[in-house]
Amino acid sequence: MKRVDVLMEALPYIQQFHGKTIVIKLGGHAMIDPAVLDTVIQDVVLLHYVGLRVVLVHGGGPEITEKMKALGKEPKFVGGLRITDNDTLEVAQMVLVGKIRGNIVSLITKFGAKGVGLAGQDGNLMFAKKTCAKKVFVGDKEEEVDLGHVGDVEEVNPELLIGLLDKGYIPVISPIAIDRKGHSLNVNADTAAGDIAIALGAYKFVNLSDIDGIMNAQRTRTYHRLTTDEAKKLIDDGVIVGGMIPKLEACLKCLDNGVEHAHIVNGNKDHTILLELFTRDGIGTMIKKSADSGL
Amino acid sequence: MKRVDVLMEALPYIQQFHGKTIVIKLGGHAMIDPAVLDTVIQDVVLLHYVGLRVVLVHGGGPEITEKMKALGKEPKFVGGLRITDNDTLEVAQMVLVGKIRGNIVSLITKFGAKGVGLAGQDGNLMFAKKTCAKKVFVGDKEEEVDLGHVGDVEEVNPELLIGLLDKGYIPVISPIAIDRKGHSLNVNADTAAGDIAIALGAYKFVNLSDIDGIMNAQRTRTYHRLTTDEAKKLIDDGVIVGGMIPKLEACLKCLDNGVEHAHIVNGNKDHTILLELFTRDGIGTMIKKSADSGL
Amino acid sequence: MKRVDVLMEALPYIQQFHGKTIVIKLGGHAMIDPAVLDTVIQDVVLLHYVGLRVVLVHGGGPEITEKMKALGKEPKFVGGLRITDNDTLEVAQMVLVGKIRGNIVSLITKFGAKGVGLAGQDGNLMFAKKTCAKKVFVGDKEEEVDLGHVGDVEEVNPELLIGLLDKGYIPVISPIAIDRKGHSLNVNADTAAGDIAIALGAYKFVNLSDIDGIMNAQRTRTYHRLTTDEAKKLIDDGVIVGGMIPKLEACLKCLDNGVEHAHIVNGNKDHTILLELFTRDGIGTMIKKSADSGL
Amino acid sequence: MKRVDVLMEALPYIQQFHGKTIVIKLGGHAMIDPAVLDTVIQDVVLLHYVGLRVVLVHGGGPEITEKMKALGKEPKFVGGLRITDNDTLEVAQMVLVGKIRGNIVSLITKFGAKGVGLAGQDGNLMFAKKTCAKKVFVGDKEEEVDLGHVGDVEEVNPELLIGLLDKGYIPVISPIAIDRKGHSLNVNADTAAGDIAIALGAYKFVNLSDIDGIMNAQRTRTYHRLTTDEAKKLIDDGVIVGGMIPKLEACLKCLDNGVEHAHIVNGNKDHTILLELFTRDGIGTMIKKSADSGL
Amino acid sequence: MKRVDVLMEALPYIQQFHGKTIVIKLGGHAMIDPAVLDTVIQDVVLLHYVGLRVVLVHGGGPEITEKMKALGKEPKFVGGLRITDNDTLEVAQMVLVGKIRGNIVSLITKFGAKGVGLAGQDGNLMFAKKTCAKKVFVGDKEEEVDLGHVGDVEEVNPELLIGLLDKGYIPVISPIAIDRKGHSLNVNADTAAGDIAIALGAYKFVNLSDIDGIMNAQRTRTYHRLTTDEAKKLIDDGVIVGGMIPKLEACLKCLDNGVEHAHIVNGNKDHTILLELFTRDGIGTMIKKSADSGL
Amino acid sequence: MKRVDVLMEALPYIQQFHGKTIVIKLGGHAMIDPAVLDTVIQDVVLLHYVGLRVVLVHGGGPEITEKMKALGKEPKFVGGLRITDNDTLEVAQMVLVGKIRGNIVSLITKFGAKGVGLAGQDGNLMFAKKTCAKKVFVGDKEEEVDLGHVGDVEEVNPELLIGLLDKGYIPVISPIAIDRKGHSLNVNADTAAGDIAIALGAYKFVNLSDIDGIMNAQRTRTYHRLTTDEAKKLIDDGVIVGGMIPKLEACLKCLDNGVEHAHIVNGNKDHTILLELFTRDGIGTMIKKSADSGL
Repeated sequence: MKRVDVLMEALPYIQQFHGKTIVIKLGGHAMIDPAVLDTVIQDVVLLHYVGLRVVLVHGGGPEITEKMKALGKEPKFVGGLRITDNDTLEVAQMVLVGKIRGNIVSLITKFGAKGVGLAGQDGNLMFAKKTCAKKVFVGDKEEEVDLGHVGDVEEVNPELLIGLLDKGYIPVISPIAIDRKGHSLNVNADTAAGDIAIALGAYKFVNLSDIDGIMNAQRTRTYHRLTTDEAKKLIDDGVIVGGMIPKLEACLKCLDNGVEHAHIVNGNKDHTILLELFTRDGIGTMIKKSADSGL
Repeated sequence: MKRVDVLMEALPYIQQFHGKTIVIKLGGHAMIDPAVLDTVIQDVVLLHYVGLRVVLVHGGGPEITEKMKALGKEPKFVGGLRITDNDTLEVAQMVLVGKIRGNIVSLITKFGAKGVGLAGQDGNLMFAKKTCAKKVFVGDKEEEVDLGHVGDVEEVNPELLIGLLDKGYIPVISPIAIDRKGHSLNVNADTAAGDIAIALGAYKFVNLSDIDGIMNAQRTRTYHRLTTDEAKKLIDDGVIVGGMIPKLEACLKCLDNGVEHAHIVNGNKDHTILLELFTRDGIGTMIKKSADSGL
Repeated sequence: MKRVDVLMEALPYIQQFHGKTIVIKLGGHAMIDPAVLDTVIQDVVLLHYVGLRVVLVHGGGPEITEKMKALGKEPKFVGGLRITDNDTLEVAQMVLVGKIRGNIVSLITKFGAKGVGLAGQDGNLMFAKKTCAKKVFVGDKEEEVDLGHVGDVEEVNPELLIGLLDKGYIPVISPIAIDRKGHSLNVNADTAAGDIAIALGAYKFVNLSDIDGIMNAQRTRTYHRLTTDEAKKLIDDGVIVGGMIPKLEACLKCLDNGVEHAHIVNGNKDHTILLELFTRDGIGTMIKKSADSGL
Repeated sequence: MKRVDVLMEALPYIQQFHGKTIVIKLGGHAMIDPAVLDTVIQDVVLLHYVGLRVVLVHGGGPEITEKMKALGKEPKFVGGLRITDNDTLEVAQMVLVGKIRGNIVSLITKFGAKGVGLAGQDGNLMFAKKTCAKKVFVGDKEEEVDLGHVGDVEEVNPELLIGLLDKGYIPVISPIAIDRKGHSLNVNADTAAGDIAIALGAYKFVNLSDIDGIMNAQRTRTYHRLTTDEAKKLIDDGVIVGGMIPKLEACLKCLDNGVEHAHIVNGNKDHTILLELFTRDGIGTMIKKSADSGL
Repeated sequence: MKRVDVLMEALPYIQQFHGKTIVIKLGGHAMIDPAVLDTVIQDVVLLHYVGLRVVLVHGGGPEITEKMKALGKEPKFVGGLRITDNDTLEVAQMVLVGKIRGNIVSLITKFGAKGVGLAGQDGNLMFAKKTCAKKVFVGDKEEEVDLGHVGDVEEVNPELLIGLLDKGYIPVISPIAIDRKGHSLNVNADTAAGDIAIALGAYKFVNLSDIDGIMNAQRTRTYHRLTTDEAKKLIDDGVIVGGMIPKLEACLKCLDNGVEHAHIVNGNKDHTILLELFTRDGIGTMIKKSADSGL
Repeated sequence: MKRVDVLMEALPYIQQFHGKTIVIKLGGHAMIDPAVLDTVIQDVVLLHYVGLRVVLVHGGGPEITEKMKALGKEPKFVGGLRITDNDTLEVAQMVLVGKIRGNIVSLITKFGAKGVGLAGQDGNLMFAKKTCAKKVFVGDKEEEVDLGHVGDVEEVNPELLIGLLDKGYIPVISPIAIDRKGHSLNVNADTAAGDIAIALGAYKFVNLSDIDGIMNAQRTRTYHRLTTDEAKKLIDDGVIVGGMIPKLEACLKCLDNGVEHAHIVNGNKDHTILLELFTRDGIGTMIKKSADSGL
């Protein structure tokens, strides 16, 4: 009987999410530990079968670095910034598209749904423009450093995604975009996932990360539910610092552009997506638009 | 985490049932005890939201008798057979359509889905012909007894049901059919539900009854899984007797006409539908076509 | 040849009405005299076959009272107002939904079209909220009287109706709505029919009543064609009085909300709907938006 | 009230014909007398508005001859057979397509529906092959006579017609077909209309002719209702003779190829189409498939 | 290999025009010389097969005059203006619809596509109102002259065209419109073609004329590319004079109403349409909206 | 004018191929030389724009070997057979999916159409089973050698391809399939392309190879047009030998399973696809079903 109670507790969430679109950024250990990835994909397939329209965006930085080394290529840095030269771009594409994404799609098949792997050039999904050169100090001289084949997403064309979702497929997207001439550019997976969520008018954006949620500087407190106003104040007041800030800002950008909820959950633990979505208190951080923000 | 395990255990069933049609006959205490009916309708709404196409057919004998008495009408019997005269038919329609069914549809709304109540005349859903007169002994003389406004279903037109299911409604059907001249006829809810399941090419037929499943004559054993051949042999061998037989035969008729699984579960207990459908062993009786039966 | 002339005279009306939606409130003798109801439903089926989209809303007050008495229940009144207690609501639903509506739908089948019976809970068709308590004098003291399970329609969801009309069904609606918790509430059939006409953006609203049309106080004159301005002036000037006023106001509300024509015709006579719609002068009252009213 | 009775008498026919396809060959006086043509087109528009899918095929022999003379061209005959040379073909096309058909379509507009004129080359509607040379006696010598640009229909492509009917247009077809090289060929309007009815799987084929129906040789009896077997026997027995035979055989061909009813009515009188279709006895001849013919 | 280069050069144009609508007015020698018409229709069929939605509008003045004479009718003029009396209208319709247009549609079939001939009455395609009487000097007295059955297009209903284009047909339209009573009126083919292009929101309007393009008064210069501003200035400055002006103004009207490009090319030479559309410099005149004109 | 002649010569082919499906296997130099690949993709985009439904399947053996070496991995062979161990499979996927295919899709974008990259796991496109172990002599002992992660295609699910083609995308498929457990298997690109052509009921299968066509053993003769019977006889007679045979047999399998034409053309030269498809004699080998083969 206990299992029935669980299903009954899940029912209101299932109703609420029915037919809604959710974009999930897969990062952290989920990308490294096969056992964790298995549970993540099981969660994803369940979300699909209970009626959500699920889109995955994956990262994969650590595996790229590892493969670079295997190929005897040295990662290049200038003034602390990583340079994506031709070799790095090639390896990044081979690892992201040819290895990690294929694996995710195969797991979706294994657990009984149908995935389709995509990158920016597929159906003109994502256009980017080359990221501007950054000024950094090399030694004691300030120099402009060209980051190489790295881009900022400037257009997402969701038609292909919508067509695939309508027919019951789960799109799995690699963070590679193209420029107007068809050249590939590496893009940040977090911001790409956010841009895709905005383009789809998604209901939820979930960042599966390697932290348990948004925490204060002392890591003594995890914020489970925040409004956009509260989140902005926590940043302004210096309560939230460091690497938390870009993650939070990606969420805030989504919420400022029509996405209803953004979640940050820990991808290193089992089934965190379901626990976050199907229980009242969740286990990570959920941020939603402040009521007074005029939307 | 336990709840996640439950959801994960349910996943294979959800996948298997996805987009399939299930016809559920609501009988027994579910029709009398409001608390039980609540849990039944919750189950139904959950089945709907995890992707099944659900059709309900309800009974309601006890309430008809009760209302007859309240109206000061005496149920009529000849030679042990109940006669459905004009008054009885009117009361049956008022109770089934005007009271019980409206209540079921309202509960579906309450739990977050959309129901639509129907009877045989709606969209020419069910045509019946008057049941033949029966020969019975009245005293010591055999007489032909006209049962009155009682019919046997001879045609189910599923177009209206299919249209409603396609748009996400849960049809709720009362066991009233019409003859070719538009006169109403009472029909047996069990056999009507079976005929509807056949007309829809349903995947599952569930008879929510007042027994725990098919049992032997001594009630010492409940059969949880049966093939059609096994079930027929149990009847032939006299292992299954009495009121179990018509229930079982209604299931066998479904299975002989394309329905894949028939279930008999106890409607007097909570959430028996979910427990039967979403667990390996079930808690009632599931009958399926024998492998060697050539289908 | 005479019959051909008639068809030819009907042609311009058939063209004008083609594909338009008409909501007909069935009241008066049409609900009591089976012979009259037969001709009304024949008219309805003809309208359907010449290309109109027909929706029926029926009343049935007299039969409810009659059935109450048969059940030995005393209609309750406080200070002149009828109180709809639990028993009254149950009887009203049984009579309206289980008896009158089923009969109408069966007649539609008999005359060759397909009807579908609906009430407020079906497909969340009509939500109402409980009517406020009224202040009345009980004896010489003014008291607030709770009218019981009576409601005012606050939302009509026409999706189900539109889906059924698109597939060629004639919806037949009982004046029962639900509140947000799924409880049934009796609603006034005239105003419910008007609200449905507005929600559907109907072309015509026809109130089949027990009067020949709108008449002056002395009943010496019947107004066959009125504009909304003329009608309002007749009320203001005291020319139209008494029970005519609410009927007229229900029509005016429709016309103020997008319905193009409202008709009041006598349901006690044969084929009044056809005579009103398919002849130049009509036989009841047709009201249309004043040209100068800015719409 | 009389008009209502007429509409009520028409109702069963309207129901029976609803959504069915009817092909009407317009010939006889209807093509000459503008007043008669007016009533024919009114009938056609009424049929359209009560739910039939109407296709017209028109003839026009007399006007072609008249225009030939006006152009100072002599109709040519060899051994009693008319020869369609280049000039004759050009005049036939100009008269049929440019004059008669445009007039019919304009009348359809005038009476409130939408027509579309077509000939064989439009949408590859009708392919024909040149009619074989005929052997005739010219003086006392038998010669093979080439009839010129005259053809026998060998393929009807109904896609364009179906597309137009689905969108509510009334196609009006001239009896001009093309050969495989795109050259125009005159075809017999009666047989072309029949071939079109067969290609559309029409419910009814109506030949609007200049006789009151099928009559015996003495013209003492008109047959109002015939089966195909009866009709064939009347021909075999020599009861029906002369020009009646090809008209009847065109009908029989339709009935042998899936059309359900064929009618021959007099196009010289007013509203004969409606009188034939909407009354029990009709006024012309209706032929239907014999019950024992195995279809 | 040369042919491949040509196809490759055409590719960017094919991409640019893909799915776009083009309205081509066929005039000049194309209407007289069968060899030229053959190449025009080949061009049209090629445009169709590489993905354009092509609509043809044809003229035919010279053939009407010729046929008038053959019929022994004298063209009538009053004060230099041609009068379209009943006879003239009849001949115009017979020639345009029954002869020229049928020929064009047959050629489309011959070259492998499907055409459908239409005039104003077909599907209520084009409504016109009678052109106002003109004041002219007859002798030395100014008189108002009624031009007869001549009209100015006032409404184009593109639904029928769009439906046919969606299904892959090439509509071929004769310059005959109807008034509100269904009477035919001759309309100018150039302006009718422009009105149709506007109603369809066409991408291109091509006027296949008997001049090589827009030239200056001395015919020493052909303008291959003009903006609307430049064209207007050329008219204002008196550089373009005479018969060029109405042709140019028909183009300018299109461009002022949403058509993107207007072309004037010579219909007396082979394949001018392809040469104009599929090469960078074209061979006639292309006019487009001035960039600074605010659209 | 020459270019117009070329377009006119291409027209009959464009008509013939309109809306037909073509599967092109990209191999040979097209996969190595960027300039050649550019012209191939231009051809593909042209085919798309003139109305064909194009599917690409690419190979890439040489690049895999090259990348293996760069990673310091030694290709393994046993008894002359290549072994695809875990490392080899990983590299194959990275190179095929992550490098070559992304490049092809980007080129499609660059030349103005929209591609979508797919492999076997995407939408369950291609299932394979592990290729059986082969018996080979290792030294002088016969041994069973397991080829590793290599498979034979056993099921192609074309739904995803059809959905993408219907929406105007060009699918680009890598020769990676999955087994029923979701593990990747390398498959032969030639046979995979043929299986996909069969599953789609393609009109044409084109193998873009590194030979000019099918040649005799002495390479003194190239066969430009062959029937299946002729091809089989040439094999039986030993006229065609060596590596030609598997290429030819892949074509014959297609033709025996519903594909109408199979082509073998040289991918090392420019625009060979267009030259083969759009000229009468072609430049490679076209094989079609023998007329007498009973299909």
